Amino acid sequence: MTSVGAVTARSIDFDEPLRLQSGALIANYTLVYETYGTLNADKSNAILICHALNASHHVAGYYEDQPNNIGWWDNMVGPGKPVDTNRFFVIGVNNLGSCFGSTGPMHINPETGKPYGHGFPVVTVEDWVQSQARLADVLGIRKFAAVMGGSLGGMQALAWSMMFPARLEHCIAIASTAKLTAQNIAFNDVARQAILTDPDFHGGDFYAYGVVPKNGLRVARMIGHITYLSNVDMSEKFGRMLRSGQYHFGFGVEFEIESYLHYQGDKFSSYFDANTYLLITRALDYFDPAAPYDGDLTRALAGTQAKFLLASFTTDWRFSSDASRAIVKALIDNRREVTYADIDAPHGHDAFLLTDERYHDLVRSYVDRMWLEIEERGN
Amino acid sequence: MTSVGAVTARSIDFDEPLRLQSGALIANYTLVYETYGTLNADKSNAILICHALNASHHVAGYYEDQPNNIGWWDNMVGPGKPVDTNRFFVIGVNNLGSCFGSTGPMHINPETGKPYGHGFPVVTVEDWVQSQARLADVLGIRKFAAVMGGSLGGMQALAWSMMFPARLEHCIAIASTAKLTAQNIAFNDVARQAILTDPDFHGGDFYAYGVVPKNGLRVARMIGHITYLSNVDMSEKFGRMLRSGQYHFGFGVEFEIESYLHYQGDKFSSYFDANTYLLITRALDYFDPAAPYDGDLTRALAGTQAKFLLASFTTDWRFSSDASRAIVKALIDNRREVTYADIDAPHGHDAFLLTDERYHDLVRSYVDRMWLEIEERGN
Repeated sequence: MTSVGAVTARSIDFDEPLRLQSGALIANYTLVYETYGTLNADKSNAILICHALNASHHVAGYYEDQPNNIGWWDNMVGPGKPVDTNRFFVIGVNNLGSCFGSTGPMHINPETGKPYGHGFPVVTVEDWVQSQARLADVLGIRKFAAVMGGSLGGMQALAWSMMFPARLEHCIAIASTAKLTAQNIAFNDVARQAILTDPDFHGGDFYAYGVVPKNGLRVARMIGHITYLSNVDMSEKFGRMLRSGQYHFGFGVEFEIESYLHYQGDKFSSYFDANTYLLITRALDYFDPAAPYDGDLTRALAGTQAKFLLASFTTDWRFSSDASRAIVKALIDNRREVTYADIDAPHGHDAFLLTDERYHDLVRSYVDRMWLEIEERGN
Repeated sequence: MTSVGAVTARSIDFDEPLRLQSGALIANYTLVYETYGTLNADKSNAILICHALNASHHVAGYYEDQPNNIGWWDNMVGPGKPVDTNRFFVIGVNNLGSCFGSTGPMHINPETGKPYGHGFPVVTVEDWVQSQARLADVLGIRKFAAVMGGSLGGMQALAWSMMFPARLEHCIAIASTAKLTAQNIAFNDVARQAILTDPDFHGGDFYAYGVVPKNGLRVARMIGHITYLSNVDMSEKFGRMLRSGQYHFGFGVEFEIESYLHYQGDKFSSYFDANTYLLITRALDYFDPAAPYDGDLTRALAGTQAKFLLASFTTDWRFSSDASRAIVKALIDNRREVTYADIDAPHGHDAFLLTDERYHDLVRSYVDRMWLEIEERGN
């Protein structure tokens, strides 16, 4: 297995206004994306990969001038990898509102000539899917072999199956959920409050002040990070290990877990945009496709036509196995074709990003079967 | 069952310096306490109740001038209640470093003439127990019928059983643990970071600036609160309920769970001291009586003489049932008398404060048996 190698991000400008779920209109916007592999003649081998909270269009490979900047799903996507780029044409797209290139709060609002800041409209999972569909139009892809993602990315894949049922053969949603729980929303809320109450946030317009709400972002990331790891994994990796073998009776770093969280928080707050964090956590909160059907997920999924692969991880307490099972049940109620595995892995929610043989074998065999379908249809 | 009625807090000044676990010395200090019921002639009916993170000496009853200020364990302690004050003499004591009367960071440091602030020494569970033992000396109580507490209060009860094995007949530790997990420490750490990085914290010396780090305290409390409730309970109470029945596509309060957390955070940050929050969470982190015995809790508990009651709650994910079972196992290894129940209750960690028939019946029957022992010894 090798990497897709050096890759280049591309962008497309969209001039047709996009009406968002909120009613707001984005007059024009740019989407940044990357592709790996080759689109076949009948454009039947395209896989769209949707990203989660802090990821981007940079799914696989590296950049010529940044050899250590490896794509976030490089272990999954590449030549000979579970999503085999020798066979498939894989697209990674950066979502609207993100801070990695696609139009977001840090970009100039053409109406004001200043950064959008607090004026950037709230975007939803469904809005992202709309904008991704336009990207697909431009790329000439009528129907994806699969739309695929983990966590929030899985929500986008699910939304694709409901909003554009005829435009995907397969929907692959890993460690995902059809709606956040109260506890999920609570964690997002606290993270947002840390940012919103940071004096350096300036109501979202901090760009003009030459500051960033680093402290708020840092705390937000630390909270998030706790929910990505399992209790068991954290105990095994860090336990009560002390940095220096003894207590110093103060509030500096004593335990290894503190050091780890500070490192994660510091790193994140040095590159991530605070407004983007608010936007993406809100998109998570809002996603609830069953809501218009009185909470009946079976009815919400009734119009889907795709075949589905779902996977969850036994120690994921953020989007638990039960959340995936609820989707599987609703799909079975609708007599959809569903493959589902609950994978016994210790790494909590983060497991969807990690290399785990059983998990990768599952995806590999599913995607291999997708390829057989394509070959059979081709003959 | 009636209340203990109107109560009065008392205080005792201690002039003998207290050497803390850190090596620091507190030259003199005040402990505030309350008592309910009557100490019998041979002083054999005293129960010491130790408090948890945000509680105090005000365990039961109310204050004449504050009729709505009900003690935090009023459902547990009173005439005819599980801890029956018609039989027992119950003492609630406020810990050193707290913000409810006993000497703490907001009090004047006699050496500087200014509030202690960041200079207040870090106190441990063991330090609290030392100071409580001095209070017992002053009150003439050689041996408690029981030392009792929930959560952090249960840790103090456990520490009593190890540090002063001859001074308690019974140790009652509810929803407690012999050590925090990495995840527990992680949550404490994030809460502390929210306070430490609040510009209004001023390194702990905010008193001089006429401000309090409200934002940091608020976030800290919200994080804590999520860990006190169970996922199930939160889902049942709040679910995805919206404040106004629809989305507003912004970052204001949308969900009922947000409203609830903000209320809890706002309330807490209006009365709780930020330095106290740091101190108490650090005391939680540090507690690990098995550490000097290479993590062997059985050896740590070998010197205990008390009989034990332990209880945990099935949905408590902060201090899980497994944490209580580890203590039970270590006590049984030492052939101690142990009563233990894992109570099926939906309310998470907070269950130890709530009225639950099975839980209260358990404590009641245990404390009734304690009373029989006292009567038998008296004859």
